[in-house]
Amino acid sequence: MIKVGVAGYGIIGQRLADGVELQKDMELVGVADIAPTLSVRALKERGMPYNLYLVDGAEKSKFDELGIPVSGSFSDLLGKVDVMLDSSPGGVGIKNKELYVKAGVKAVFQGGEKDSIADVFFHGYANYEKGLGVDYLKLTSCNTTGLIRAVDCLDRKYGVERVAITIVRRVADPGDYHRGLTNALQMEKAPSHQAVDLMTIMPHIEATGILVHTPVTHGHIITVLAHSQNGKITKDMALKAFREHNRIRVVTIDEGFLGNASLFRYARDLGNPRGDMYEIALWEDSVVESGDDIMFAINIPQEAVTIPETIDAARACMKMQPDSKSATDKTNDYLGMGKWK
Amino acid sequence: MIKVGVAGYGIIGQRLADGVELQKDMELVGVADIAPTLSVRALKERGMPYNLYLVDGAEKSKFDELGIPVSGSFSDLLGKVDVMLDSSPGGVGIKNKELYVKAGVKAVFQGGEKDSIADVFFHGYANYEKGLGVDYLKLTSCNTTGLIRAVDCLDRKYGVERVAITIVRRVADPGDYHRGLTNALQMEKAPSHQAVDLMTIMPHIEATGILVHTPVTHGHIITVLAHSQNGKITKDMALKAFREHNRIRVVTIDEGFLGNASLFRYARDLGNPRGDMYEIALWEDSVVESGDDIMFAINIPQEAVTIPETIDAARACMKMQPDSKSATDKTNDYLGMGKWK
Amino acid sequence: MIKVGVAGYGIIGQRLADGVELQKDMELVGVADIAPTLSVRALKERGMPYNLYLVDGAEKSKFDELGIPVSGSFSDLLGKVDVMLDSSPGGVGIKNKELYVKAGVKAVFQGGEKDSIADVFFHGYANYEKGLGVDYLKLTSCNTTGLIRAVDCLDRKYGVERVAITIVRRVADPGDYHRGLTNALQMEKAPSHQAVDLMTIMPHIEATGILVHTPVTHGHIITVLAHSQNGKITKDMALKAFREHNRIRVVTIDEGFLGNASLFRYARDLGNPRGDMYEIALWEDSVVESGDDIMFAINIPQEAVTIPETIDAARACMKMQPDSKSATDKTNDYLGMGKWK
Amino acid sequence: MIKVGVAGYGIIGQRLADGVELQKDMELVGVADIAPTLSVRALKERGMPYNLYLVDGAEKSKFDELGIPVSGSFSDLLGKVDVMLDSSPGGVGIKNKELYVKAGVKAVFQGGEKDSIADVFFHGYANYEKGLGVDYLKLTSCNTTGLIRAVDCLDRKYGVERVAITIVRRVADPGDYHRGLTNALQMEKAPSHQAVDLMTIMPHIEATGILVHTPVTHGHIITVLAHSQNGKITKDMALKAFREHNRIRVVTIDEGFLGNASLFRYARDLGNPRGDMYEIALWEDSVVESGDDIMFAINIPQEAVTIPETIDAARACMKMQPDSKSATDKTNDYLGMGKWK
Repeated sequence: MIKVGVAGYGIIGQRLADGVELQKDMELVGVADIAPTLSVRALKERGMPYNLYLVDGAEKSKFDELGIPVSGSFSDLLGKVDVMLDSSPGGVGIKNKELYVKAGVKAVFQGGEKDSIADVFFHGYANYEKGLGVDYLKLTSCNTTGLIRAVDCLDRKYGVERVAITIVRRVADPGDYHRGLTNALQMEKAPSHQAVDLMTIMPHIEATGILVHTPVTHGHIITVLAHSQNGKITKDMALKAFREHNRIRVVTIDEGFLGNASLFRYARDLGNPRGDMYEIALWEDSVVESGDDIMFAINIPQEAVTIPETIDAARACMKMQPDSKSATDKTNDYLGMGKWK
Repeated sequence: MIKVGVAGYGIIGQRLADGVELQKDMELVGVADIAPTLSVRALKERGMPYNLYLVDGAEKSKFDELGIPVSGSFSDLLGKVDVMLDSSPGGVGIKNKELYVKAGVKAVFQGGEKDSIADVFFHGYANYEKGLGVDYLKLTSCNTTGLIRAVDCLDRKYGVERVAITIVRRVADPGDYHRGLTNALQMEKAPSHQAVDLMTIMPHIEATGILVHTPVTHGHIITVLAHSQNGKITKDMALKAFREHNRIRVVTIDEGFLGNASLFRYARDLGNPRGDMYEIALWEDSVVESGDDIMFAINIPQEAVTIPETIDAARACMKMQPDSKSATDKTNDYLGMGKWK
Repeated sequence: MIKVGVAGYGIIGQRLADGVELQKDMELVGVADIAPTLSVRALKERGMPYNLYLVDGAEKSKFDELGIPVSGSFSDLLGKVDVMLDSSPGGVGIKNKELYVKAGVKAVFQGGEKDSIADVFFHGYANYEKGLGVDYLKLTSCNTTGLIRAVDCLDRKYGVERVAITIVRRVADPGDYHRGLTNALQMEKAPSHQAVDLMTIMPHIEATGILVHTPVTHGHIITVLAHSQNGKITKDMALKAFREHNRIRVVTIDEGFLGNASLFRYARDLGNPRGDMYEIALWEDSVVESGDDIMFAINIPQEAVTIPETIDAARACMKMQPDSKSATDKTNDYLGMGKWK
Repeated sequence: MIKVGVAGYGIIGQRLADGVELQKDMELVGVADIAPTLSVRALKERGMPYNLYLVDGAEKSKFDELGIPVSGSFSDLLGKVDVMLDSSPGGVGIKNKELYVKAGVKAVFQGGEKDSIADVFFHGYANYEKGLGVDYLKLTSCNTTGLIRAVDCLDRKYGVERVAITIVRRVADPGDYHRGLTNALQMEKAPSHQAVDLMTIMPHIEATGILVHTPVTHGHIITVLAHSQNGKITKDMALKAFREHNRIRVVTIDEGFLGNASLFRYARDLGNPRGDMYEIALWEDSVVESGDDIMFAINIPQEAVTIPETIDAARACMKMQPDSKSATDKTNDYLGMGKWK
């Protein structure tokens, strides 16, 4: 039973905690945060299903005033875990890493940190084996995680040597008042970092792309044009591969999946906690052929999409499973992924 | 044990079903719909926690193709229930009513129907007693339901004879592709129907107001200016009343409740199914005095706010409790309302 | 001096009228509409710079009440013009065509009509010659017009045989309350009609693409991946071609053009009537190479982008200039296009 | 002929320059800025209708590279003017003031500065006489300027002793990428500063209110509930007063003015530079009576609404006219205000 802690109980941290709880071969020791945020207040109102630890700099009196039980300090938590899943705000992870090193604890960082924080830049499908036994892993960002799932899915089956992507990016999360865009699309300089990151994880692929921010909160949509070195990938071939994947849900407009907001609504209707969705969706009606290339659109539920691959990362660094297939199967099984099929 | 059915398994219907399930003195017999919408597909993916009946006009073959189990026809359902909670699309309820009359079944309609559909236009707090034993009730709309909660709360304690409201209305629900507003505020002719409806329910109050549609999906915000015939209502008096109410959550900006989106996020973080919130929120920092009048702002979570009062309505028409106090206490207890205090 | 009328004084019609006014070899006889819309009221408040005619079905008394001078009926207008630019709401043009045929008047229709309305589906650059002397032309839609400008620009210089596009579409115009999208991206079934339309105009090119609606009002953004049969198109080659084009403005993020909203603001700051922009913008920082293909992003100012090509169409059907080069040069000269260089 | 300069050629500065140009008794000497922003680039593309001066800290080489003609330094400009209209970014005005004092130049600051920057907090209608001959004036913010217009209009005619407002605030300007809100309404602590500011300008009135930010860019909407010490103000009385005012345009939903976006569109259709609108709009269909109080909704076109009152301020500090009536008449006449009637 691997013992796991979560640093940063925010959007990602809450979902990591939930995801780890579902893994029968992992134990969630607790979560850590610095302030009584709304998420922490909600944890209290829920009756503290997870133990809360305070990172250095937290004012315990603020938690006491609100009657929020605290189980100990960050070093208390580090003393009890094998691996930390670090979803602190960008830039904090690098400071936490010093504590992890000192405590002899492994860690998986999220995409907001610099690549240099980790020994391996990681994705559960595309390079699981590189993470085996490694102390510090950094996960790909939400967009890149979902994108690689789809590209890797085709690559394994048919070979992919080049992709060109357009990311129609949601600009903020629901409830996010720190960032926002009002009646505007915003460009980023190309190539997008997601394309560059894909090449780091999958060095045999040439990738480029353009990112446009849009004023919505539920789910990025990415169009992907993929080219195989082995000849044409037809629509049928692509769909066959996607349908077999347990982290990809193939949907259609006719079913009612009109866009990213339909998927969020569906996940809420499913009763998923918070309306979370681990899987990316792929629109069957978006798949078109362009010469020998295949083009399609996927939806990336940004809040929860990295949870499965982060759990894969814990498996890799703890050497729980020897290869991607067995590790992702375990993660998927415990998360209930693919049961919609 | 009162037997309840739900007609229309959409945004409201799903939540009514969940709410009835929580009532220990009610039994949810089943839900009815006409087509395999996303909500119905989600029901199937969840393993059919509720029995599904098909209303007239539904094509059973479409459900069969998708492997969605069907428990019977609408008349089958009507044969098994004491009361129907009708959340069909606006205008359908009036047709359903004929079937209810024929089957000798009571019914509670939602705000989208015309007032004439029912014997009493109903609110659980403001006129429960009028609904006692009555066959057909119509609930106030989401905005009016939440508004009346707050006005009734002050009225009971201090007396209210006049209110003027400004409704900052969310224009669509999450996942709604049928309606929308893009970078625009939209006026409606004054007085708003919510003010008029309030006067129908609380005829001793003079109410007027202005409604502005805004391009957001999570929660209406209403500002209310209330005047008492009994002298000044101070900020302290108002807050005292609001804090005692089990369907009103008093929040502050400093806690992190920056707006309607914070409340939606909080409800998601609480693990509430779909991120639903039954209670209205009232911002402590919005309460100000204007002469002898009191002014404040409330948040109306439009998807779920009418659930408690609809359940109150079932209690009233079935004479389960003799008065508002005992009925709303029961509903609140089973829904867990006010336990945040 | 060619005599021109405009049918439908709405978003496009107003801009067509302005554009024709600027052509020294055209005379704007008048504009026609059916009701005293805000645009017509604005025309009156401006002192009637254009003569107004009423189409059949208009109630003249409504115009009289508002003191809006009327110059005659639609047939009066048709009796005075050589060519009508028809920007009536979609579906109305086909009815107007009967009147044009009867009156022996040529016409140019906008993209909202079916292709069958016209003898030639037209673009000023890509197939001007096909429209020479033809009675009825239909212009490409706003997205397709701008897209073809960019693709034709590369095609003339380097040859293009295949394009794959992603359209990040603005869902409504400023002030549009009939359509809207709130916090949602919406998919359309692929391939997008714009890709299909491009193939109709440029049959030697294979085109496909995916369209995503976004909740903004100022300018579509399209990413284009283009493949040449003649070898690699480099970034420098592409930029060189784009810079020479008088209907394409090459911009950068560093200058301050962060997205579609910056371009709208810039057009307003330029003092352009209504903040209109005839040219598409192309982000220099978006241009990337993908294998031998070139990828880039363009901004389509949907309200005004078709004006130049519509005027080109008038030139073609009236045989004012013999070829695309001389016709577009004239249009550009009178509209002041390219003078930013 | 009063000589005027404008500091800060941004959203407000551009419009101040245009407004001053229209005053036949004022001469615009020039405008000053620090960097070649899009607005300055647009000035250049327009052929430099206004002379540009560089404030301290500007890098002249950047302007030279772009071929933007510079007429001199900020002190050169100050040497030529009687009064500066300062629309620098918030916080910069206070630094500029030192230069104005040194140069012996009067100045009018915008609402972004602290009240202490000026001798008088100014509004052209409500306290013109207080600004007479005063060296440093600060204008009310956009919302407060428009709000006071409407309240002063009723106050002059009928007396007003109390107002309660709800501000439905647009959160960003078109083209603004620095601020934004996505699918969220945001509360501010009550009372809103606009209500407090109104009391500073009109100390005989008790004002309070609540502000809600909304994710739109065109025009704030404010609902106002006003109470007179002299008895009931009826709808007819209110409308009569509003209709006579030259900076208030009374509109209706039936005419097509559905919301703030309709007004922006109308201003564009009028051919106003940038689609600017100096007047506030008041919806006739929003006016309702609440007891003896009158309630109504107004639209505040945030980009241009302060221009007339700022020009009034220049008149006051330069003692061009002895009282509000004669000064605002002059400003209105030159700006063409009220000619829609």
